[in-house]
Amino acid sequence: MKRNIKVERLNQRPIELQEIELVERKGIGHPDSVADGLAESISRALCQEYLKRFGAVLHHNTDKTQIVAGRSNPSFGGGEVICPIYILLTGRATRIFKGEEIPVDTIAIRAARRLLEESLSNLDINHHTIIDAKIGMGSSDLRDVFGRKVPSANDTSFGVGYAPLSETEQIVYNTERELLKLKKKIPAIGEDTKVMGMRERDSINLTIACAMIDKYVSSIEDYVQLKEDIVQHIAEYTSQFTSRKIKAQINVADDIEKGSVYLTVTGTSAEMGDDGAVGRGNRTNGLITPGRPMSLEATSGKNPINHVGKIYNLLAMVASKKIAEEIDSIEEVYIRILSQIGRPIDEPHMAGIQVVLKEGADMVKVQTEAEELMNDWLENISQIQEMIFRGELNTY
Amino acid sequence: MKRNIKVERLNQRPIELQEIELVERKGIGHPDSVADGLAESISRALCQEYLKRFGAVLHHNTDKTQIVAGRSNPSFGGGEVICPIYILLTGRATRIFKGEEIPVDTIAIRAARRLLEESLSNLDINHHTIIDAKIGMGSSDLRDVFGRKVPSANDTSFGVGYAPLSETEQIVYNTERELLKLKKKIPAIGEDTKVMGMRERDSINLTIACAMIDKYVSSIEDYVQLKEDIVQHIAEYTSQFTSRKIKAQINVADDIEKGSVYLTVTGTSAEMGDDGAVGRGNRTNGLITPGRPMSLEATSGKNPINHVGKIYNLLAMVASKKIAEEIDSIEEVYIRILSQIGRPIDEPHMAGIQVVLKEGADMVKVQTEAEELMNDWLENISQIQEMIFRGELNTY
Amino acid sequence: MKRNIKVERLNQRPIELQEIELVERKGIGHPDSVADGLAESISRALCQEYLKRFGAVLHHNTDKTQIVAGRSNPSFGGGEVICPIYILLTGRATRIFKGEEIPVDTIAIRAARRLLEESLSNLDINHHTIIDAKIGMGSSDLRDVFGRKVPSANDTSFGVGYAPLSETEQIVYNTERELLKLKKKIPAIGEDTKVMGMRERDSINLTIACAMIDKYVSSIEDYVQLKEDIVQHIAEYTSQFTSRKIKAQINVADDIEKGSVYLTVTGTSAEMGDDGAVGRGNRTNGLITPGRPMSLEATSGKNPINHVGKIYNLLAMVASKKIAEEIDSIEEVYIRILSQIGRPIDEPHMAGIQVVLKEGADMVKVQTEAEELMNDWLENISQIQEMIFRGELNTY
Amino acid sequence: MKRNIKVERLNQRPIELQEIELVERKGIGHPDSVADGLAESISRALCQEYLKRFGAVLHHNTDKTQIVAGRSNPSFGGGEVICPIYILLTGRATRIFKGEEIPVDTIAIRAARRLLEESLSNLDINHHTIIDAKIGMGSSDLRDVFGRKVPSANDTSFGVGYAPLSETEQIVYNTERELLKLKKKIPAIGEDTKVMGMRERDSINLTIACAMIDKYVSSIEDYVQLKEDIVQHIAEYTSQFTSRKIKAQINVADDIEKGSVYLTVTGTSAEMGDDGAVGRGNRTNGLITPGRPMSLEATSGKNPINHVGKIYNLLAMVASKKIAEEIDSIEEVYIRILSQIGRPIDEPHMAGIQVVLKEGADMVKVQTEAEELMNDWLENISQIQEMIFRGELNTY
Repeated sequence: MKRNIKVERLNQRPIELQEIELVERKGIGHPDSVADGLAESISRALCQEYLKRFGAVLHHNTDKTQIVAGRSNPSFGGGEVICPIYILLTGRATRIFKGEEIPVDTIAIRAARRLLEESLSNLDINHHTIIDAKIGMGSSDLRDVFGRKVPSANDTSFGVGYAPLSETEQIVYNTERELLKLKKKIPAIGEDTKVMGMRERDSINLTIACAMIDKYVSSIEDYVQLKEDIVQHIAEYTSQFTSRKIKAQINVADDIEKGSVYLTVTGTSAEMGDDGAVGRGNRTNGLITPGRPMSLEATSGKNPINHVGKIYNLLAMVASKKIAEEIDSIEEVYIRILSQIGRPIDEPHMAGIQVVLKEGADMVKVQTEAEELMNDWLENISQIQEMIFRGELNTY
Repeated sequence: MKRNIKVERLNQRPIELQEIELVERKGIGHPDSVADGLAESISRALCQEYLKRFGAVLHHNTDKTQIVAGRSNPSFGGGEVICPIYILLTGRATRIFKGEEIPVDTIAIRAARRLLEESLSNLDINHHTIIDAKIGMGSSDLRDVFGRKVPSANDTSFGVGYAPLSETEQIVYNTERELLKLKKKIPAIGEDTKVMGMRERDSINLTIACAMIDKYVSSIEDYVQLKEDIVQHIAEYTSQFTSRKIKAQINVADDIEKGSVYLTVTGTSAEMGDDGAVGRGNRTNGLITPGRPMSLEATSGKNPINHVGKIYNLLAMVASKKIAEEIDSIEEVYIRILSQIGRPIDEPHMAGIQVVLKEGADMVKVQTEAEELMNDWLENISQIQEMIFRGELNTY
Repeated sequence: MKRNIKVERLNQRPIELQEIELVERKGIGHPDSVADGLAESISRALCQEYLKRFGAVLHHNTDKTQIVAGRSNPSFGGGEVICPIYILLTGRATRIFKGEEIPVDTIAIRAARRLLEESLSNLDINHHTIIDAKIGMGSSDLRDVFGRKVPSANDTSFGVGYAPLSETEQIVYNTERELLKLKKKIPAIGEDTKVMGMRERDSINLTIACAMIDKYVSSIEDYVQLKEDIVQHIAEYTSQFTSRKIKAQINVADDIEKGSVYLTVTGTSAEMGDDGAVGRGNRTNGLITPGRPMSLEATSGKNPINHVGKIYNLLAMVASKKIAEEIDSIEEVYIRILSQIGRPIDEPHMAGIQVVLKEGADMVKVQTEAEELMNDWLENISQIQEMIFRGELNTY
Repeated sequence: MKRNIKVERLNQRPIELQEIELVERKGIGHPDSVADGLAESISRALCQEYLKRFGAVLHHNTDKTQIVAGRSNPSFGGGEVICPIYILLTGRATRIFKGEEIPVDTIAIRAARRLLEESLSNLDINHHTIIDAKIGMGSSDLRDVFGRKVPSANDTSFGVGYAPLSETEQIVYNTERELLKLKKKIPAIGEDTKVMGMRERDSINLTIACAMIDKYVSSIEDYVQLKEDIVQHIAEYTSQFTSRKIKAQINVADDIEKGSVYLTVTGTSAEMGDDGAVGRGNRTNGLITPGRPMSLEATSGKNPINHVGKIYNLLAMVASKKIAEEIDSIEEVYIRILSQIGRPIDEPHMAGIQVVLKEGADMVKVQTEAEELMNDWLENISQIQEMIFRGELNTY
């Protein structure tokens, strides 16, 4: 089979040489991330249940989870949640197959509780959340699709990916990871963080928002001290990634004199005012990068069988990484894959690869190698699906 | 005041010279667009009510509208809606001010009904929709913000914009507009359309999805004929914008022999299986463009006073247009504006302008002029706010 | 067939000779009555649709409608509704039959809107209510039942009825009816009324609660005058039914000096604080009578095919009326009918008739006649079902 | 103070001498009972919290809890719940007092979980229920009421009570209690039971519905055997209460041959098709008795301060018991208490006491004693309120 793969040379100044870069990452306890996490964990749980019962994944898309903020009264030493966080698990899934009913809602609730435990360790799930489940049934046309051997694309849409990550991107990503580790020493750190990185030439500004947990903070003085500890730790930690100048700040909107600080009972702003939705947060590489190609598609919660909005975004990310790693002379690679509704997913309408080359690179050779690598991935697209089942690919 | 505005030259191949381009537009009746439209129309109605009652816009963000698909049974000549479309108007708004209660829900419902009438002319709002309103109150900290003269940014986030539109972008955008006009002659055209444009070098492929309205289609033959009429019309219409080769297709997933076609009762896929959410569809320029800088921020429904996620995205779009128009030697311009929570919105953390220049351009002159134009817009940022109140800026 | 019908003589002082009597009627716009009305009108609409499509009534019970109060700001001359009244149409109904889908929700919403128009003429349905529909599917076991010739009882439960109405009962019932007529002259009268009658020997006290409609009341003085007009009218009107002394009062909780009066925008207290539920209001004779046998069963919204909670209550009411009318020597008659789940509905577990006789009556004759009349009704129980379909039997 | 207390002699055949009697009790796991239990336990928890924080009970009414049935797939040895039971905790409560916010929803959820544990021991609350809380705020007028010394009646309504219980009533009541005890030996007995007693002269028919729990039943043969064991036990147990003939039956709608039996996963029919609502089940004496005076008022969940619908029903029950116990010559006593909105609750509009006397009784003496006892209760009405706070009075 001849696939429509295009490799194009891009005469573009590499990201590190551009003057300005903006990068953001929402932590795993951010309401949008939690929504993504719930959606994806439910899809994964359904996949496993379908496989166990029927040997095949049945149609579902659970990508509409909503988190409606609660109301809380945090206070140093420990406050209280006034109104619980309302979590609506929704979407569509096959509920009956070959006469057997699948307990879709029960599975979803079980998966949701587990995800919440992992993502928000200080949340009292039983009393501070309402977990509602309203998962409907899909349209019959779509359900047909799954009978075919290689599934057909469910829609006309596209996926994008690029590699490698820039220095600033790595720093932003790793800062969030490091805060989670630091939490073991400083339990006041909530999982709801947001790291915004701005690079101007060789100066990187990190603005961190971190929901502090009230029961681990005894006073305003304690709070101020903890902020300093965190900032200092992050400044030291991030210096390993760059020779650029880094300036880190945390909870910049605090007004210490007025006592207006970023304090929470549960470690997430969802307890007070901040809603969350699927697909509003990090892309599949864990980042939001307005200066790089991005897809708007919500990948979390979509079925990994025929939903090209999910499959092609993950494929583009994975393939771009591989290509950047394996082809030495590539400086940067950008991939876009376009589907057309009804076509087998291993034959995209078009797969476009743009490469920024290092000096002296042989474009003809790069072209051949990149095309081949891409073709391999498409040939074995079921690998991507299996990586999703096994939870090996992050979606946020 | 000295604002942090950076102008940078970008050595990048202009979009028209790149080999591949992907562009998408969701029509005004697409579930995601309807969600955006509802969110924005409610915010606008609230702004007007607040201004009328108190002479000032009060805090609100109504950017969480959800559309949960119904269930229908379309059939040639006219079918029926089985389960109505559930529309949840949600978000937060000031409900009491100076002892006066504002009928927030009633205002929201009124605005929503009007938007639905405009966007989905064949929808029987009374019987085919459930309009639910659950608009809460915001957190008090945020409400304080509005007392200050120039409002402070509500968050650390960014806006992006670029200009001018490429040929393919114009074609995709205008195709959707033209379908709405064509609807007057061919009433079977539903407002829920999706236009996907892919350009490979000098060949443009338009894939249109269009929800056809059953009562205006008498039979499968009629349906096939209407599709041909539409495709032919669009092919002729779009040829004015380009000398490139255009190929248009419509409803490519149809299986005419099996009678499986894209037929609806109401003109929107929300009647059957397709949910909608705010911020999942078109960006402020009306397009989704993975090869161009994009913000993930949902702009619709956010308050135009201090929500930088809205203001900076609209500002970046408007300013980039102006800069591209007024500075002759600019081929392409890309703008990114970053806020920091708590800073006045007219003093962004950074405003970055990247320019691709025409041959022979004087970068120093461009730099001065672009900076000046940007500075003017920031100086007069209340203009953007007023344009939003008056509904002069589209958000989707 | 020999049915288990028992006739028993009751040596009891007739109600008119008892010293104290308590009687209540909730008007058609009272939140509980509106809930009953919605439930019943939806059931009736479904019956008609099922009959039209399939020639038979299919399983359904729509007896769970909920009315959640809104929030309003009434004021003389016309106030506003702040939060709409939330109306949840719920229950269960057959949604698919012989492969055909029935648009259950659409039918329910249509019926609900019509009932609201009839019951609350000043309610702006489009803007002051949220009509939500969540009608599920019944259990399959119950659905089977409908195939049999004479349906089997869906449950073990009972119905009760009595006749004739006492003087006080008639007065309370008719007072509510008269207020609706008076509304044509005094449009300020809302349909949400509650009439409480207490008789102590020969003195009857009528306490009326009436939601006044603000746009038809110009001032507090106007309000006071209207109350006087209404009370005077009712005093005159009710005197026709009795030679006893009647004292009528209206809106006794008003505090005129403080301006705290019973004013509404829409004519129902559901706009502000008062929820409504099915089965909480009037019994099938239109009254609440704690001194008389009553069933707790909600009759509104239940299916008229096999739901004995509905059928037996209506049958007991109708049969007791007939028996009281046709058998001269009966002073009072009380009927109780008990079903057993699974038995044909025309063969109740027991039908008990208690009679209070006039002096000189022949109990043996009464026994024979009453048993015969009861037997006839059971023999022709489908008549009751048809009267329900045709809307000839009130349930509240 | 002279209260309006009337004592009247009733020349009525005592219940035991009437030919027919109908009595019903819904078990504590019946959906209607669970709804009552939830409503009441939430009110009690709020009372305690208000008392602890402010030394006074604040306004609330949590009498609108809804239980929407789930969907299950029971099977011998253990089946599964497909859709969870949806439980909506609703009503109104004071959420802010003297500037302090009360975590009303959190309290309600905590109380609800405890009640479910107590009432349905085999229900997996975390995975088989959705506990939603939407508790609003009351109207301000009502909130004022609580400032006065003796609260004023919130409405014009009435309470009723009678004593003593008849033999059949005792049997029905105790049968349900005994089933709960028997559950320790026969764990297959679910808490969702319904006991219907019909007495015809000297023959009592008990029809029991009992939700059997699938994991404790290995097969259809086991099921049949368990039913026999239960029936035999109940037959023996009930014989202590009467010399009349008792016939007990259980799950009469079972069709053993078809395998259609009353099996559940959780021990309640709420898992499959049976909804529950407050105020639809047992009266304050734990029974439904159509041949006795009954109030339709839902007592569970109402505030014990000024809600006469609750207070007067409990008072009428308690006072009638006391009067029947203390005044020897009374055979039966019936009490009705009527409030008028705005009057202090210790001064009802009227308290009517009807007595059926034993032969040779002295009516004048009875009249004096009964009036005195009633007057004492009204004088010390706060006792009733305290008994409610302490959970000493059952409401269902």
